Amino acid sequence: MSNRAHLDDLGLSTGKKARLHRILHEHGLRNGTALFLPYDQGLEHGPRDFFANPAASDPKYILRLAVEGGFNGVVLQIGLAEKFYWDFAGEVPLVLKLNGKTDIPPDDAPLSPVNASVEDAVRLGADAVGYTLYVGTPAQPADFAALRTVREDAHRFGLPLIVWAYPRGPAIEAKGGKSSFYAVDYAARTASELGADIVKVNFPQPTLRTSVKPEYDADFSAQQAIDAVVRSANRTQVLVSGGERAGDEAMLEKARRSMDAGALGLIFGRNVWQREHDESLRFAARLREILASHSGGTPPRAAQPELIGPFDRAEALSAS
Amino acid sequence: MSNRAHLDDLGLSTGKKARLHRILHEHGLRNGTALFLPYDQGLEHGPRDFFANPAASDPKYILRLAVEGGFNGVVLQIGLAEKFYWDFAGEVPLVLKLNGKTDIPPDDAPLSPVNASVEDAVRLGADAVGYTLYVGTPAQPADFAALRTVREDAHRFGLPLIVWAYPRGPAIEAKGGKSSFYAVDYAARTASELGADIVKVNFPQPTLRTSVKPEYDADFSAQQAIDAVVRSANRTQVLVSGGERAGDEAMLEKARRSMDAGALGLIFGRNVWQREHDESLRFAARLREILASHSGGTPPRAAQPELIGPFDRAEALSAS
Amino acid sequence: MSNRAHLDDLGLSTGKKARLHRILHEHGLRNGTALFLPYDQGLEHGPRDFFANPAASDPKYILRLAVEGGFNGVVLQIGLAEKFYWDFAGEVPLVLKLNGKTDIPPDDAPLSPVNASVEDAVRLGADAVGYTLYVGTPAQPADFAALRTVREDAHRFGLPLIVWAYPRGPAIEAKGGKSSFYAVDYAARTASELGADIVKVNFPQPTLRTSVKPEYDADFSAQQAIDAVVRSANRTQVLVSGGERAGDEAMLEKARRSMDAGALGLIFGRNVWQREHDESLRFAARLREILASHSGGTPPRAAQPELIGPFDRAEALSAS
Amino acid sequence: MSNRAHLDDLGLSTGKKARLHRILHEHGLRNGTALFLPYDQGLEHGPRDFFANPAASDPKYILRLAVEGGFNGVVLQIGLAEKFYWDFAGEVPLVLKLNGKTDIPPDDAPLSPVNASVEDAVRLGADAVGYTLYVGTPAQPADFAALRTVREDAHRFGLPLIVWAYPRGPAIEAKGGKSSFYAVDYAARTASELGADIVKVNFPQPTLRTSVKPEYDADFSAQQAIDAVVRSANRTQVLVSGGERAGDEAMLEKARRSMDAGALGLIFGRNVWQREHDESLRFAARLREILASHSGGTPPRAAQPELIGPFDRAEALSAS
Amino acid sequence: MSNRAHLDDLGLSTGKKARLHRILHEHGLRNGTALFLPYDQGLEHGPRDFFANPAASDPKYILRLAVEGGFNGVVLQIGLAEKFYWDFAGEVPLVLKLNGKTDIPPDDAPLSPVNASVEDAVRLGADAVGYTLYVGTPAQPADFAALRTVREDAHRFGLPLIVWAYPRGPAIEAKGGKSSFYAVDYAARTASELGADIVKVNFPQPTLRTSVKPEYDADFSAQQAIDAVVRSANRTQVLVSGGERAGDEAMLEKARRSMDAGALGLIFGRNVWQREHDESLRFAARLREILASHSGGTPPRAAQPELIGPFDRAEALSAS
Repeated sequence: MSNRAHLDDLGLSTGKKARLHRILHEHGLRNGTALFLPYDQGLEHGPRDFFANPAASDPKYILRLAVEGGFNGVVLQIGLAEKFYWDFAGEVPLVLKLNGKTDIPPDDAPLSPVNASVEDAVRLGADAVGYTLYVGTPAQPADFAALRTVREDAHRFGLPLIVWAYPRGPAIEAKGGKSSFYAVDYAARTASELGADIVKVNFPQPTLRTSVKPEYDADFSAQQAIDAVVRSANRTQVLVSGGERAGDEAMLEKARRSMDAGALGLIFGRNVWQREHDESLRFAARLREILASHSGGTPPRAAQPELIGPFDRAEALSAS
Repeated sequence: MSNRAHLDDLGLSTGKKARLHRILHEHGLRNGTALFLPYDQGLEHGPRDFFANPAASDPKYILRLAVEGGFNGVVLQIGLAEKFYWDFAGEVPLVLKLNGKTDIPPDDAPLSPVNASVEDAVRLGADAVGYTLYVGTPAQPADFAALRTVREDAHRFGLPLIVWAYPRGPAIEAKGGKSSFYAVDYAARTASELGADIVKVNFPQPTLRTSVKPEYDADFSAQQAIDAVVRSANRTQVLVSGGERAGDEAMLEKARRSMDAGALGLIFGRNVWQREHDESLRFAARLREILASHSGGTPPRAAQPELIGPFDRAEALSAS
Repeated sequence: MSNRAHLDDLGLSTGKKARLHRILHEHGLRNGTALFLPYDQGLEHGPRDFFANPAASDPKYILRLAVEGGFNGVVLQIGLAEKFYWDFAGEVPLVLKLNGKTDIPPDDAPLSPVNASVEDAVRLGADAVGYTLYVGTPAQPADFAALRTVREDAHRFGLPLIVWAYPRGPAIEAKGGKSSFYAVDYAARTASELGADIVKVNFPQPTLRTSVKPEYDADFSAQQAIDAVVRSANRTQVLVSGGERAGDEAMLEKARRSMDAGALGLIFGRNVWQREHDESLRFAARLREILASHSGGTPPRAAQPELIGPFDRAEALSAS
Repeated sequence: MSNRAHLDDLGLSTGKKARLHRILHEHGLRNGTALFLPYDQGLEHGPRDFFANPAASDPKYILRLAVEGGFNGVVLQIGLAEKFYWDFAGEVPLVLKLNGKTDIPPDDAPLSPVNASVEDAVRLGADAVGYTLYVGTPAQPADFAALRTVREDAHRFGLPLIVWAYPRGPAIEAKGGKSSFYAVDYAARTASELGADIVKVNFPQPTLRTSVKPEYDADFSAQQAIDAVVRSANRTQVLVSGGERAGDEAMLEKARRSMDAGALGLIFGRNVWQREHDESLRFAARLREILASHSGGTPPRAAQPELIGPFDRAEALSAS
Repeated sequence: MSNRAHLDDLGLSTGKKARLHRILHEHGLRNGTALFLPYDQGLEHGPRDFFANPAASDPKYILRLAVEGGFNGVVLQIGLAEKFYWDFAGEVPLVLKLNGKTDIPPDDAPLSPVNASVEDAVRLGADAVGYTLYVGTPAQPADFAALRTVREDAHRFGLPLIVWAYPRGPAIEAKGGKSSFYAVDYAARTASELGADIVKVNFPQPTLRTSVKPEYDADFSAQQAIDAVVRSANRTQVLVSGGERAGDEAMLEKARRSMDAGALGLIFGRNVWQREHDESLRFAARLREILASHSGGTPPRAAQPELIGPFDRAEALSAS
């Protein structure tokens, strides 16, 4: 059983629906849930993120991991997508991350410059585009303006738009911080109001209550918080991110709560590839187990191909 | 009797007139008045506005409420319009709000970024567009420039332009505040001078007189103030907003005074949907009663008795 | 009961659905059927068409007739729309006919020049655009190319596209003529394959069998023929035209058969306005009776009883 | 064993490779061969093609057949793609046919007008575009010019370009006709020289030797002819079409010879859907048997998913 | 033996590969390594850089040196390229440096303005373009935006893009400085993520550890550091620059380590031409010796090493 909406009921155009169908029903578990492998940390944090597992510095290693681990998509910046996606083109869906920045300059008015276009994503055969929106910063007008262009192009070309909705900036820090229930909830809604098809959020922490808006200054459980975030995003589907590598059991617990709340799936990078290869696959398998027990909506018209051998499918369907 | 102008006498182009006719005479009370349901608070204030009635977090609930409550239009940001309006397309007119922002960063030079275009509104079948103009802020030049583009496009495509005219910024705060008669009156006129077809204002408070311009530092009644505001806007029609939820009787009194002054109608969001469903409809019905007793201008030609031929239209329609 | 599809099931974008909803459920009988009043004969045939009823030469007379007669839309060329639609803007939906020609030059390779744009239609507040496609003529490449531009713009702006699909040219004349079942069926399908939302056809005559393709050289009844045409058009909704004025009973019989076949409605011009005013309204009323007995699909959500809250909408509205 | 080239060795850009991977390895038999279901005959020949099986008049029936029959793609014109593909978006790859015409006017200088753009295909989530090139007609310059634009756009957006290479016109008729080995071989090479990624040809008939160029006026077997055609097309992959419905055994024999020659696959429309539903699936199953015994190139890096259950895949791969 | 990747394995488009083939296999040692002569110091530092060898002030002298010294390319700003490259057009590949600035204003938020376009480079027959990216400065958004345009144009025209990746700004100064292993490693990766085909870095100094990110605050040898930088850049090939003139042996040691690490080659300007003519050639010859012992990948198919010895060509040229 699932409280996730069916792909037919999300208000999607034909192209967006076709591409989300591919991501959700032709890859990964093919059950309407999603597990994404993000790999833009080399830009966002620098190569230090690869020190724990130097092999992860090689984009080809990561793409292979995405295929082997049964991920629904891999997230790359334009430079790596141009040079590495050809090798695995179509074997795992590509999410082209359109903006990104280094973490070197101070973060008081963060703005993530746009490094590639939706047309680049089309040209490379990507199935979705990603955009980081820093919600609540002083650079809000420029950020919204850049997102608008991305949204328009994503609409024009029929590509799903995934918004990394990150509360940031001094005002957020003064109101409970970037992980507070208040901040995450508002960020999810902002992405939805501005046209995201999917929103990536960090798991909300309702205990961060200092100086949040009064409505959020109450006793909420973690489950209540993530339930509310999914509800705020509504038809915009929610991905919960792993963030920095942390204890596995705590991570898996958050994953379970997110899927219970009706999230579309998970987006785990460092928690996956900052460990040795076989350990990465084993952790991914545990995430997939959680997704398997939360299959999404009703299945698409064509029954799940993995249940049917090469010639059984037509027969099975004609019998239906 | 009404002192509202007839649609024929507002200096409208064909397309603007056709769309306003639909809003004013094909929906709601069909008497030339208007009751709008705004729903962009999820962006402007965040999901906290839905805590009083969690069902209101769902845009589909709100659209259904707009249809059931006989509203003349519902106001949405692009993201929600893209995903939800299809379900009710044409059943209630859509006003696409073209700009909007979060309330997280400090508000000393507010500017509402443009998140969608008039062409988006055309594409979605909207009957009007909305733009928030912060009158009197240090960001005035950028705000006017963005409004100019919207006005030009609204003109080109024949869509009525509704301006949310909000006095804001330190200079306003220093001269009586955003709700003073001085500020509201100036804001209404500014919208009119810059090309609004309809202007949304808060009800003016003539008792806020500290440091206002000397002309406003006199004893004005509430009725005199709203009369003056409507007069300042002239052929630009006035909508009075409810603002934060407040006592019902005070709200209804403001509504009555506004309609007495010749306002086109009301735009009430939180006062409507921050209560349980049936209560929302009951409050909307009370607002409609006020509008019903202030029917607008002369009726359109089709409703004029001498135009009705042997087959009476109302009869034929009510029989279907 | 009806075999017409619901508006939800026609594969329409939001804007097209909103505008068709207006045409089908906010005007005329509001039951999902349509009766259009075309008025481009002054260009297509010249003023000779007005000699039977000289009043019909005045576009204002026709627009008034469209409102009085409860038509779902009136069809005008750009010149008349510019000068006359303002007077009735929004009271009856406008279909802007984008191409048109005189019947003076020889008709061996007819091509109808484009005289206005979809953007003109948007600007005037039209709810649909019309395009005449001459199917089967030697000018096919130029005709298809012009239609393509119109289709793209209609898609971009969300306006329904009505194609007047007219089989024409020497090859058609040599294969049963323009009214043969073969020709009409092929024309309807061509419009559907090329992106029409609605196709206007003449009633097919299955007895015109000389030199048609062998599949059509068989005994088909009139009902079988129109059934097949509606099936060929599929999600493209069918309007059957009256054509030249002919005997009323024969016309009404064709109208009945068309609606039995699942057509969306009727488009009758000369048969309506080539007679005295009250006679026109009486004939329109007989057409409406046929439509009333063939209501379309399921009603829109707003008319569904479970949606009506404590304040009954129809009551509230009829009371105003 | 196969003489088909691997996808890596076809000189493809990233986007074209990603999309061909989807078609060849994520749908149908997933073995690098392809079976396409073309459905533009309603435009090319008219609804008469549906008389043998009236259900085939409904595009939804055909799309369902494509999914049930395990086809690698379905070919539609823009009108049907717009209205019907949403229902099955992503479940079966879409090939948007960009040009097409009726068969009504005389065919002495055939030219197929462009009815849709590559951008339409991108927007709808199509995985390839199709273009009909009439090789050898007097309209060759206009035809090549239109193809050039399509090729440029297909390159820009990374969509594979499938050219229907049809020898036509009086000069072809005077030199052995459109099915001669000479004509088909030349057409295949023409498509390859002008930038097709895939070329659709009719099976060549080497016995049609009257007035062909002397090199073709010799005793060639059918196998020698199709071998030569595939060689002429080289990295442009070959699809062999079924054409008009004909005897099943003869069709299957041609299919076998084509795959023996190294063709990519088959494109069969009327031979499939001009029979009752279950018979269609049975005939498709026989075509699939032929493709299954001619699997293409080496498999993609990710092993065939249909052989692996939901959780076995990562393990299988990590073992490799 | 070399750990450099073959040109076939770098994910390059046809045009980029053709031009890099020219640079790497038709000039210099023709063994897949590269030695570039940069000559934009007249803009970056002013004519003071020419005081050590006044002849170097003449661009013609430098171009001749590039040809005589067997360089794989010479780097010029647009002004000098326009006036001087004609004389040696094609004799030595041109890298057009697209941005550049004086060092006169303070360097706290450095941004290098774009002075020429990729189209200028095409027009002049250049084989690559260069762009200076200041990684980590407060001007990051503007810098990334300008690079994006250059990358898009370089892709469109098929020109390899060489990014001068220079860590700069107060945040870098506060975290180990511009030559720290941390800074150089991050800069190399940033260029790779944003689409550089080749990245020019300074040799990293792992002993600069004050306030660097903890991962870099450990004992790394110079060789370990440059190995890591080459790995971080991955398919983006690395050029190590000489920087300010310094002791020859230290320079050659860095060059050797860089080539051991798998760098593509060296880019030495002042160290070459800030000495007398024959000394310049002699120093260049020592650099070529290092490159000769680190030949790149497998040789291209067409290259026959027996045709030309490593040092024959320069001799032939210097004799002319």
